[in-house]
Formats: sequence, C-alpha cells, structure tokens
Amino acid sequence: MTKNERATDRSARRFSADRDLIEEAMSRLLPGEGEEPVSLHRAMRHAALGGGKRIRGVFCLAAHRLFGEPHPDDALRAACAIEFLHAYTLVHDDLPALDDDATRRGKPSCHVAFGEAGAVLAGDALQAFAFETLAGCAKAPAEHVVGALRILAGTAGSRQLVGGQMADLEAEHAVPDRGTVLFIHQRKTGALIAAALGIGASLAGCAPAQLAELMESGSEIGLAFQIVDDLLDLTGSEGKVGKGLRKDAKKGKMTWPSCCGEAASRDTARELVETAIGRVKALGDAAYLEYLYGLVVDRVS
Amino acid sequence: MTKNERATDRSARRFSADRDLIEEAMSRLLPGEGEEPVSLHRAMRHAALGGGKRIRGVFCLAAHRLFGEPHPDDALRAACAIEFLHAYTLVHDDLPALDDDATRRGKPSCHVAFGEAGAVLAGDALQAFAFETLAGCAKAPAEHVVGALRILAGTAGSRQLVGGQMADLEAEHAVPDRGTVLFIHQRKTGALIAAALGIGASLAGCAPAQLAELMESGSEIGLAFQIVDDLLDLTGSEGKVGKGLRKDAKKGKMTWPSCCGEAASRDTARELVETAIGRVKALGDAAYLEYLYGLVVDRVS
Repeated sequence: MTKNERATDRSARRFSADRDLIEEAMSRLLPGEGEEPVSLHRAMRHAALGGGKRIRGVFCLAAHRLFGEPHPDDALRAACAIEFLHAYTLVHDDLPALDDDATRRGKPSCHVAFGEAGAVLAGDALQAFAFETLAGCAKAPAEHVVGALRILAGTAGSRQLVGGQMADLEAEHAVPDRGTVLFIHQRKTGALIAAALGIGASLAGCAPAQLAELMESGSEIGLAFQIVDDLLDLTGSEGKVGKGLRKDAKKGKMTWPSCCGEAASRDTARELVETAIGRVKALGDAAYLEYLYGLVVDRVS
Repeated sequence: MTKNERATDRSARRFSADRDLIEEAMSRLLPGEGEEPVSLHRAMRHAALGGGKRIRGVFCLAAHRLFGEPHPDDALRAACAIEFLHAYTLVHDDLPALDDDATRRGKPSCHVAFGEAGAVLAGDALQAFAFETLAGCAKAPAEHVVGALRILAGTAGSRQLVGGQMADLEAEHAVPDRGTVLFIHQRKTGALIAAALGIGASLAGCAPAQLAELMESGSEIGLAFQIVDDLLDLTGSEGKVGKGLRKDAKKGKMTWPSCCGEAASRDTARELVETAIGRVKALGDAAYLEYLYGLVVDRVS
C-alpha cells in the first residue's frame, strides 16, 4: 500500500465507524417504541432509523475533528440532531400533497405505513427532536451550543430547507432555468450540509472566518451532491443506485442536467468538489473531509 | 375605585399593551411577504398574524416580569417564539388528514388559502422559525438561552404537544375516560402554557425550584383553560365565543365534560385556577399573573 492508499483506507474505516456510531446513538436517543403514544414513536423510529447513509451526520463529526475534537459526545449528539432533521424533511416531502412517494430507503414511506396524520405528526415531532437533541449538548460552552442552534434553526426554516422545498414544488413542469435550479439546490441540499459542518465546527469553538470558509465548502459539496443525484436519476442503473430512477422526469422536476446538459453538469460537480477540497485543505489536517468530499463525485465518475 | 379595582385596571391595560407589543414584534420578525418563495412567506404570515389572543406570549412576558424583567427584548422575542410555535400547531391540526377545519380565527385556514402542500410547509417553517427566534436572544446569558431552548424543544416534541395531538386523534369516538382526556389536555394545552412561563422565567435566570413551581402552575392553568374551552364548546353561545360550537361532539372528540360532567368540570377548573394562583403568589409580586389566571375561569363563570 502507498501512503495515499493507507490514508484512504484509514478514512474509509473511519467513515464506516462514524456511521455505526451515529446509527447507534440515534436509536438510543429516540423515545422507545413502547412509549405512549406508541404509534407516534413507532412512526418516528420507522422514519429515522435503518437505511440512511448518515453522510450529513458524518460531515458534522469530521468538522468537529478538524478542530481537535474537544467535545466528542456533543458532536455525536449534533450529528444525530442533523440526521433527525433530515429524516423529518423526507417524511414530509413524501406526503401525498407534496412529492407523493410510496417508498423510501427500500421501505414503505411513513404515510404509507402510519397514515397521513401519523406522518405529519411524526415529521413534526422529529423536527422538534432535532432541536431537543442539539440543545442537550452539555459539555461545550453554552455560547457555542447557542451558536450551533442558531445555525440549525436558520437552516431548517423558510429561507433555506423549507423554502427550497416550496420552490421545488412550484418549479414542477416549468421551463428549466439555471437560476431557479440553483435557488432550489442550494436550499434543499446545500444548506443542511453546510449546517452539518458549521455545527460540528461551532461546538469545537472554531473562529468565525474558518466557520464561514468551512460552510462555504459545504454549500459547494451540497450542490455537487445534488447535481450528481440528478445525473444518477437520469443516467444510472437501478441496481447500482438502489432506488427507482427517472423519477425527476416523471414528476416534471427541474434538475441540473435539464438546465445545463449532462456533460456540463458533470464538469460543474467536479469543479465544485475541487474548490471545496481546496478550502478545507487550508484549514488544517483535512484528509478525512477530503476523502468524504471525494466520495460525492466518485458516484458518477 | 378601590385598591383592588385599580390593580385590576392596571393589569387589564398591561395585558392589552403586551398583546400589541407581541403582535407588532411578530410582524416585524417574520420574513416579509415579498421575500422568495413569496407564497410560503405569505402563508406563514397568514397563519401567524391577526386574530390570536397571544395569551401564551403574554404569560411569557408576565413570568419574566415576575423575576425583575432583566432582559425585556429577549422576553419579547421568546413570547413571539411561543406564538410562532402555537401558530404552527394550529396550521397542522387544521389539515384535512387531521382535524380538517376550514376556518381559523374567522379566516380561511392555511390549507384552504394556500393548498395542502403550502400549509404543511408553512407549518414546518413556523416551527423552525420559533426556534430561530428564541435562539436569537442576545442579551440574556447563553446558559439561560440554552435552558429556554431546552424547554421549548421538549415541549414541542412527541412527549408533549405532538404526543397530545396524536392521542387526541386516536381517542376520537372512543369511550370517554378521565385518564385519557388528562393525558391529552396536559400535553395539547398545559405543556405550552407551562413552557411559556418557564421560558420567560429562565431568561430572567430564576432558580430551579421557582421554575418548577411556576411551570406547575402553568400546567394547572393550561388544564383549566382546556376544560373551559370544552365547556364553552358544549354550552356557550356562538356570538359570545366567536367560533363555531359543538365541534367536539361532531368530531367525536373526548372532552372533560364528556368524562366528568358539566358541573364537576366547572368545579375542577375553578380549583385548578385557585391552586395555580396560590403557587405564583408565593413567588413574589404576582398581581399581573393572578389577573391573567383569573381570566381563564371568568370565561365560564
């Protein structure tokens, strides 16, 4: 093994270990299936556990490690909080009134398994639980916890995640337009990845200038991630991607390739990842983040 | 005017002034109607502004004042945060899959005015905005802000508000049972009123024992408030109550009078208010809170 291969191997093992850590902690933190109201807690666990890639949570841990990992317990809580928030957005996106998806991560989506009211409420409770989990950080100084909560709340709201989802619905069957698809992708995907990095770093007490740079790299990686997702939906093989394909076209979703073409989309994704890697390299020993960022483009190269 | 009448008059004027303060601050804090996505921000403003009694927000201000009102700007933010959270629960409760209510506060409910997807997303964004607004407190010490955020998040989740709403839906058309209706009312109504008081007091740095006592009084007042609401729905006159009546019976909702009878319900509400007033009197100059608590039973006496 060369030095580079050894570093990659170390990062790959860390990625796998981090995912396991997050999955285990999420299960431990969530109310148990036997707690009343039982149907609500079953729906929350159905939606949050089993099958997620946990990439957002892993980004949070990696950012915290970049600044010396002073509060690993808090960072793990934060990683779970981000995954709870992400899970809630999927539950509500899948509702009949929104994207009307019957399956998610190979299982019946929440409203199919627990009814529409159950899915609305399970999503609502998961959003609250994300904030409860993050607010439970007890090792980092309180001002850093407040900083992290401000990032999460700002990201979850109408100016980012929810605004992106609304714009996505409104853009269905509209003429593809680069400005619109950028508005949607930055909010629907870029914002939460930037927040995951920013929250991990904030809990470690990183300086404002470094925080801004790290979050900027997250926006870029998030955008690249979404472009790659659009490309896989368009050109991937079902077995390899692990979910139904050509869904964007069926729903009349506005995608990056529909605006800019396949080849240019691929180039843009690659350039975004390079820029993002450059940013984090300047912040310290970023080998792990570099590896994680690289995974994004590896999916289509 | 007697001394008592003057005190009542002063409290009544303060109540009216506090409501105006909260309404004005809510409008100022919310994203403007012109901000993209316009339909989402219009839906949020439609749901949050105009028509609310703001009693939860006023409780928050009153609790903060009870402990010397050290951070009035933060207390006002917190009051708005609680009202944003309350507004989101109403938007989602009104959805066709839940209570299916077409009107709210004399206006079309959010899903009637903005469609089902718009209402799901406006509710989601209002919940996030509640946390964003509270996390924006910048005058109180950070540990008090984290304490306040923990109360809000715990209250919003599956063990309180959302759990109460789920239990409420599941109890429809079931045999009335005091334990079940208590479970529902404590979570659907008691919890947020307790939280409003607790958050106002936390931001003022009140001691844990006082916080517990104050929040306990809030649970009692919340329960009394809900019993009174059930009684008004059953026995009130439409013009006086200002909304459609006998809705609980039409929907097969489990109510306090359906479990315990009208007379006993009235007695329970009165006793709860007396106990709650006793608690806050022991905490300091609580004339204003006493007045506000009294309003709850005045509605049916």
